[in-house]
Amino acid sequence: MTIEATQKSVMPALGNREANHPSSMVAMFGADEPLVLDAGLSLAPFQLAYQTYGELNADKSNAILVCHALTGDQHVANANPVTGRAGWWSALVGEGKPIDTSKYFVICSNVIGSCMGSTGPASINPATGEPYALDLPVITIRDMVRAQAMLVDRLGIDTLLAVIGGSMGGMQVLQWAVSYPERVFAALPIATGARHSSQNIAFDEVGRQAVMADPDWRGGRYIAHGCRPHKGLAVARMAAHVTYLSEAALQRKFGRELQDREALGFGFDADFQIESYLRHQGMTFVDRFDANSYLYLTRAMDYFDIAADFGGSLATAFRNTKTRFCLVSFSSDWLFPTSENRAIVHALNAAAASVSFVEIVTDRGHDAFLLDEPEFFSASEGFISSVAKARGL
Amino acid sequence: MTIEATQKSVMPALGNREANHPSSMVAMFGADEPLVLDAGLSLAPFQLAYQTYGELNADKSNAILVCHALTGDQHVANANPVTGRAGWWSALVGEGKPIDTSKYFVICSNVIGSCMGSTGPASINPATGEPYALDLPVITIRDMVRAQAMLVDRLGIDTLLAVIGGSMGGMQVLQWAVSYPERVFAALPIATGARHSSQNIAFDEVGRQAVMADPDWRGGRYIAHGCRPHKGLAVARMAAHVTYLSEAALQRKFGRELQDREALGFGFDADFQIESYLRHQGMTFVDRFDANSYLYLTRAMDYFDIAADFGGSLATAFRNTKTRFCLVSFSSDWLFPTSENRAIVHALNAAAASVSFVEIVTDRGHDAFLLDEPEFFSASEGFISSVAKARGL
Repeated sequence: MTIEATQKSVMPALGNREANHPSSMVAMFGADEPLVLDAGLSLAPFQLAYQTYGELNADKSNAILVCHALTGDQHVANANPVTGRAGWWSALVGEGKPIDTSKYFVICSNVIGSCMGSTGPASINPATGEPYALDLPVITIRDMVRAQAMLVDRLGIDTLLAVIGGSMGGMQVLQWAVSYPERVFAALPIATGARHSSQNIAFDEVGRQAVMADPDWRGGRYIAHGCRPHKGLAVARMAAHVTYLSEAALQRKFGRELQDREALGFGFDADFQIESYLRHQGMTFVDRFDANSYLYLTRAMDYFDIAADFGGSLATAFRNTKTRFCLVSFSSDWLFPTSENRAIVHALNAAAASVSFVEIVTDRGHDAFLLDEPEFFSASEGFISSVAKARGL
Repeated sequence: MTIEATQKSVMPALGNREANHPSSMVAMFGADEPLVLDAGLSLAPFQLAYQTYGELNADKSNAILVCHALTGDQHVANANPVTGRAGWWSALVGEGKPIDTSKYFVICSNVIGSCMGSTGPASINPATGEPYALDLPVITIRDMVRAQAMLVDRLGIDTLLAVIGGSMGGMQVLQWAVSYPERVFAALPIATGARHSSQNIAFDEVGRQAVMADPDWRGGRYIAHGCRPHKGLAVARMAAHVTYLSEAALQRKFGRELQDREALGFGFDADFQIESYLRHQGMTFVDRFDANSYLYLTRAMDYFDIAADFGGSLATAFRNTKTRFCLVSFSSDWLFPTSENRAIVHALNAAAASVSFVEIVTDRGHDAFLLDEPEFFSASEGFISSVAKARGL
């Protein structure tokens, strides 16, 4: 295993975390434990970087798996060692928080294909001694979930109390419920869809083309060439970022306000605050994210279509499920609109599943699932409490 | 004047059009007729390429000015000499069409800053003998309209029967009504807004950054370097194109249909039809459009904010107007949603103007204004007929 060479901040073995050290634990899977991929290949060896919070109880019934979104990571509730900022869901997950780590054992692993310590295109391909780049097989949401299940196995957990996630994380939640129905007591998919829409594929394709148009991408082999497609990746991030916000939120936050000036500049510098904001989003993103991982993870989202494996019937995908579901959508989310979430609810109803549905009224768009939304938090807390009670906790 | 060197298909002088030749007429404005720009500078010499259709009547009361959108041109109703395709509004404008050129004299000029024969950043700067590139001052919608007014002057027309246009063309219509209220008998702004929203600025900025991220952009001086930022401009076009369509139209036209294959390819080629479609849109666009013009015209749209010159009051901008207005919006247009159009209607009502408003129900998004939309056509025909009658035609 030479993966450590490119992943400095991760620990070499499962469960080996120093006290107060923010770096992740890493689960290593060797040649005898390959990850079977939907692409028809196997990946071995591979590794998953992960974080846990709280304590697993004696009968291992209080474990909650959190699934992160496209550019997220395993640092749900601890300071992010790369950015130094608070964990991305630290308002929702933690001691005394809606998902209370004094009651529950919370796990989050960096998805396969990403770049925060789990095996991805920037990892070393043991067959060549070079980074995989595009030689890594295309990864699917089901592959991510399959890898997570191997981690949950290794942690000795049979059935998860709940699987929770938003956006691409919500896709993983749905996939968990379909792939391992008996292992998911409750599922909380947030701001997601059962398949990527044509518009979502379109925006992802714009981002990928922006990355691949950058000559520093070098056919994906930029690490070997000692460069990075920073400009292309920044443009991809800017385009995506617009889709995470609602028109109303943009108008409220930025409107046509000018940046550091009294009047229009009559040039192509950032005149408007929204321009500066987007440029900043693009520039800071490239410091923390790998361009090829961006290609792989957007591809995984585009390929996601749960019903496709069941003759186009989402209800069939969920037939005989015992999992308790709660879906959450946000009224101004136009990337995964309420209608997409409601389609899942309808399918679950058709499958006679236990399902509740909450639409949170907010103007903050898709990003709302990462923000301090009291109604969302209280719905999550209520749902998790009720399923914990149902499981005898 | 050395501009002709870069604009091969245009004619050298006003009104000098060969029979059956699709090339445009060109109005030349010399050093004694500078275009006064909002940037605080003057542009001289400059030229406007334009087309006319039909005959101007004896009292010059039947002239209709058509204003084109961002990537449009003067070829409203004749075969486009660059692409060979039908004129962009040939379904609306022509003999026997809703805007009937057997009754009306229709004019359309390529906007200043564009690249279809009018002076723009690709034109030769007489001071240097090189293309202007970014030395051309930033152009505004008001500058475009000011130049059009000089053309209308030269054609000997005092008051236009109507000014018509969609999207950026609609901005010009509104600006005409504000800048030259006595010269606009009727105005038909379509699928537009009185100012660019924060979200629209954001998408434009993504496009500009995509162009400027391309190393072949060369700080704008790509013509002198013998290259073109094709990749960056293609990405910009792809991003913009998604915003021209509605989510419903994309789902209906493309859905998750695969392109020339039975199953997912597990790679980064175009798997989905929507990907092929967008790539095609990007690739064909770069053959017909200048990258710097794209920067200038998106900037002009971003700067547009009619109310800003009137203390933020749109109603004040239109005070005492005698122009008859008809506004048209499309229900699924999320770039210039009905609410933006309705805000203009409200301001016109507050200004006691004559105004009617039609929202066309369609799932085709912003692009609907360029498509065969029977209700839109009949509304346009009805409005133009009524104002022609009111003017005694």
